[in-house]
Amino acid sequence: MAEAVAILTRTPRTLDDLLRGLPDGWIAANEGENTWSPFDVIGHLIHGERTDWIPRARIILEHGETRAFEKFDRFAQFADSSGRTLASLLDEFATLRQANLRELESLRVSGDDLDRRGRHPELGTVTLRQLLATWVAHDLDHVVQISRVIARQYSDEVGPWRDYLRIISGTQG
Amino acid sequence: MAEAVAILTRTPRTLDDLLRGLPDGWIAANEGENTWSPFDVIGHLIHGERTDWIPRARIILEHGETRAFEKFDRFAQFADSSGRTLASLLDEFATLRQANLRELESLRVSGDDLDRRGRHPELGTVTLRQLLATWVAHDLDHVVQISRVIARQYSDEVGPWRDYLRIISGTQG
Repeated sequence: MAEAVAILTRTPRTLDDLLRGLPDGWIAANEGENTWSPFDVIGHLIHGERTDWIPRARIILEHGETRAFEKFDRFAQFADSSGRTLASLLDEFATLRQANLRELESLRVSGDDLDRRGRHPELGTVTLRQLLATWVAHDLDHVVQISRVIARQYSDEVGPWRDYLRIISGTQG
Repeated sequence: MAEAVAILTRTPRTLDDLLRGLPDGWIAANEGENTWSPFDVIGHLIHGERTDWIPRARIILEHGETRAFEKFDRFAQFADSSGRTLASLLDEFATLRQANLRELESLRVSGDDLDRRGRHPELGTVTLRQLLATWVAHDLDHVVQISRVIARQYSDEVGPWRDYLRIISGTQG
């Protein structure tokens, strides 16, 4: 738990440092049709704070497997972030994350609680431990995505170095 | 140039926020034999600041294609970082990067300069523009690598969510 919280606490600041004040071209860049920009990703993380991690932890603790989680809307950010600035999204993400980590602390999750089960609408039985580990990995997944989207704007500019750069060549090496 | 510098300026702070104070288990974790830990990566970035980017830019501007770059030592960090703390490496990286960006500014690179050519010992002819774009993409490549190494420590813990997490499943999606 302490390890997980260490990462969850850091993500808003990490993304803030990476993105705040960057030229708009980078904030709005994506990797082609049906892919997300850094701006889209921050909206997606906000939606997760509102509807995914802590609400699902509460469902596990209060209802166990008797009540399935709400399905997560992977496209909510396209409406929710419309007309917003990146700065305001970064601020909102940081505020929501901080509140959610306070709420997590207030749940006083025990070792036994981590093994408690819930029901995912598609994946079936999951545990609270898996939910919290996924929260962490999901943060890092989107740090990767944002870094990759930005780097790929330089796919041509790097010239022959392209082969050495896994982020551009597409290998995970 | 301004875009490139915007990223190059941010990287030390981004990595500092992500890594400083994390439990040792995560700092030293890697992805198996012959892969690097976050600790190793920061040492590698330091070696790049010392021997790669600005030294190569100087060679291009002073010698053009008549003098090939020194080969870059991808393993220098294993000796150089030995016995160091992560905190001291993060400090050193930030200091070197700041100095190198000041030096880059002092070179007053013009649009024409960006097209000047140098000679890479393996890749052959490259331009200053390509070198600087690669510096940026290389930073982001290692932000990706560090995030991935950390997330993969949770490969089992995430349970059935594994399939949804590209960072763990290995797809770049």
